[in-house]
Amino acid sequence: MIQIALLGFGVVGAGTAALLRKHEALIAARLGQSVRIKYILDLRDFPNSPFADRIVHDFNVIQNDPEIALIAEMMGGEHPAYDYTKALLLRGKSVVTSNKAVVAAFGVELLEIARQNHVSYAFEASVGGGIPIIRPMTTDFLSGQIQTIAGILNGTTNYILTQMKDCGKTYADALAEAQSKGYAEKDPTADVGGFDTCRKLCILTALATGILPQYTEVHTEGIAAISAEDVRILAHAGCAVKLLGVMQTQNGKPCCITAPFVCSEKHPLNNVNDVFNGILIHADPLGDTMFYGRGAGADPTASAVANDILSLIRDGMDSFAPTFVSARPGDLLPSQDFTARRYIRTAMPKEALTARFGDLHAVGDDAYCTAAAFSDSAFAALIKDVGQISTLRIL
Amino acid sequence: MIQIALLGFGVVGAGTAALLRKHEALIAARLGQSVRIKYILDLRDFPNSPFADRIVHDFNVIQNDPEIALIAEMMGGEHPAYDYTKALLLRGKSVVTSNKAVVAAFGVELLEIARQNHVSYAFEASVGGGIPIIRPMTTDFLSGQIQTIAGILNGTTNYILTQMKDCGKTYADALAEAQSKGYAEKDPTADVGGFDTCRKLCILTALATGILPQYTEVHTEGIAAISAEDVRILAHAGCAVKLLGVMQTQNGKPCCITAPFVCSEKHPLNNVNDVFNGILIHADPLGDTMFYGRGAGADPTASAVANDILSLIRDGMDSFAPTFVSARPGDLLPSQDFTARRYIRTAMPKEALTARFGDLHAVGDDAYCTAAAFSDSAFAALIKDVGQISTLRIL
Repeated sequence: MIQIALLGFGVVGAGTAALLRKHEALIAARLGQSVRIKYILDLRDFPNSPFADRIVHDFNVIQNDPEIALIAEMMGGEHPAYDYTKALLLRGKSVVTSNKAVVAAFGVELLEIARQNHVSYAFEASVGGGIPIIRPMTTDFLSGQIQTIAGILNGTTNYILTQMKDCGKTYADALAEAQSKGYAEKDPTADVGGFDTCRKLCILTALATGILPQYTEVHTEGIAAISAEDVRILAHAGCAVKLLGVMQTQNGKPCCITAPFVCSEKHPLNNVNDVFNGILIHADPLGDTMFYGRGAGADPTASAVANDILSLIRDGMDSFAPTFVSARPGDLLPSQDFTARRYIRTAMPKEALTARFGDLHAVGDDAYCTAAAFSDSAFAALIKDVGQISTLRIL
Repeated sequence: MIQIALLGFGVVGAGTAALLRKHEALIAARLGQSVRIKYILDLRDFPNSPFADRIVHDFNVIQNDPEIALIAEMMGGEHPAYDYTKALLLRGKSVVTSNKAVVAAFGVELLEIARQNHVSYAFEASVGGGIPIIRPMTTDFLSGQIQTIAGILNGTTNYILTQMKDCGKTYADALAEAQSKGYAEKDPTADVGGFDTCRKLCILTALATGILPQYTEVHTEGIAAISAEDVRILAHAGCAVKLLGVMQTQNGKPCCITAPFVCSEKHPLNNVNDVFNGILIHADPLGDTMFYGRGAGADPTASAVANDILSLIRDGMDSFAPTFVSARPGDLLPSQDFTARRYIRTAMPKEALTARFGDLHAVGDDAYCTAAAFSDSAFAALIKDVGQISTLRIL
């Protein structure tokens, strides 16, 4: 029997405890030993929970118990989650986490501490909910070079955008519905502002390139400014607007951006709807690969946390060991160099637009897609005096 | 430096050699050591290849060389690939393979020999080309129970079906075009008859359930009988016809079938087109997850072979160790118990059809989808006296 501890008994923590209990026999058969939750750290008590007797309020009980070699951190937020994780790794205990904020901010340091102490810091649940993506990126692309990542990484915003497209709703109405269904929080800023997507993009970029971008340096646009009219015009042309985290290699360097993009009808991400996530990876020589699934919620996230727990038990406490470094100046291209074709809608006559942007493909009244790709900075200069213009990057 | 050998210098073998050479520096940096191809076994000589000096014709050179601890088998066919693989594993050498025929027929035995000799028999390239699927299935579903697999596992047939749908071609015309483009072989039976898909389904089923079906026991329909008219009617309703390998758990037991299925507009597999593959897995509690990518061709398959090679070097020669047993009578439900809703097209009046099949949803002239699901055997009994009928299962 192996004994573990959970930090946090919220949605993900409770889901993980329930999953480990539900599949107790299956797990014991697969691992050849059973997994027991000895402690659950939370500020609250849960007298009616079947795990009521495991609840502790003092972190020291966990970090000082030599029987505990593996801890799942599901507290959310940077502190004290980071501090607890660091303390545990320094004591030679492995940590698995669903906490993308900690991984994006402190992943380099925590992985190095884990390595020095011959344990793992695993974070499958930090990106893509239940979709297997972190472990495949560290193992299944070993022979190749990942050149592009384009991910629908946030279920809340994808639900809102799907409602806008399929039901013709405005952003405000779709957000209100998402909130009423519990898909969006009362303060939805982290989701709709793109900040959640940005952190996840940084984690994926680190695994793909060995360089963890500073998330504050990645240009991040949310979805609040997307007009129902653009969504309608593009839907009529078979296209969908998706909030993406994108890393693309330009001139040999990674360039990252978080923004709404137009996905054409045949693009694999076009069909990723509702609260689902999809992550497209283009690698040499593999070509396009996509990972699709439920990106949030108790069950999928708990599933990823539990898989990290079980694979460390099966494969060894030091078996997950990616390495990456913090981006130094010049390691990445700035977001303003990000280059993409553009969707534009403006009252300016087509001839004048063509003179400025080159060949255009009409997709609706006063709405066009450019044939040429422009960097963000070049495009900003080109539209300076255009007047009212609505624009989106094209994936 | 680690020295390896390749068996077979055809499309996949040559692709693997080229990939390991192209990314030589990258790979050495990732592994901390370089990987050198010492031998390539083939009946032919390749005097103009950069690997001409590695070609050998005698298998004994490889199996007797103590410097060779890892071999990639890419010969295709059951013999002598199986015999060579067994001999190598018995000598304590790891084998990776792209050979689905050997895995489907002899996987149980070869994995057991590998286990006894503390080495691995790895087969990422045997299913889904370059899509990471074998390793994720052995690691990323550890905490859950896979209940359904539905896979577009053959690029040739998916190309033909995409041509029929998008260009209104008949099966014969689409096949001829696939052959002219090199996507289909002169004798296309293994692909269009569903036999390739069936073997891959058996491998995935083994990983999901621990039980390897006997592939000859899995009901297998190909795509030659699919009518252009049904494809047209269904496309008009947003649906696509896809050749799928499906495992679904019914009454606690796996039930497998290989057949063309109708995928509705919003289904993730609907949008998997051309030579791409897509594998949908439904697990408890994870829900739906899909893996998508290039399912065939030199680069994707070589990429998967090379990933197996490199991950065994990185993680240890005994690091890939799934186990499954051969199906015994009663372990699986027979294919005739496979239960699905049905698409039917027949001249019989709707009232008579409703009396027989229950509620129907019209999708075109004389074409309907049933609301109820029928087992294959129950459905066969129901249509015995219907006369001319065209039918497909619905996913």
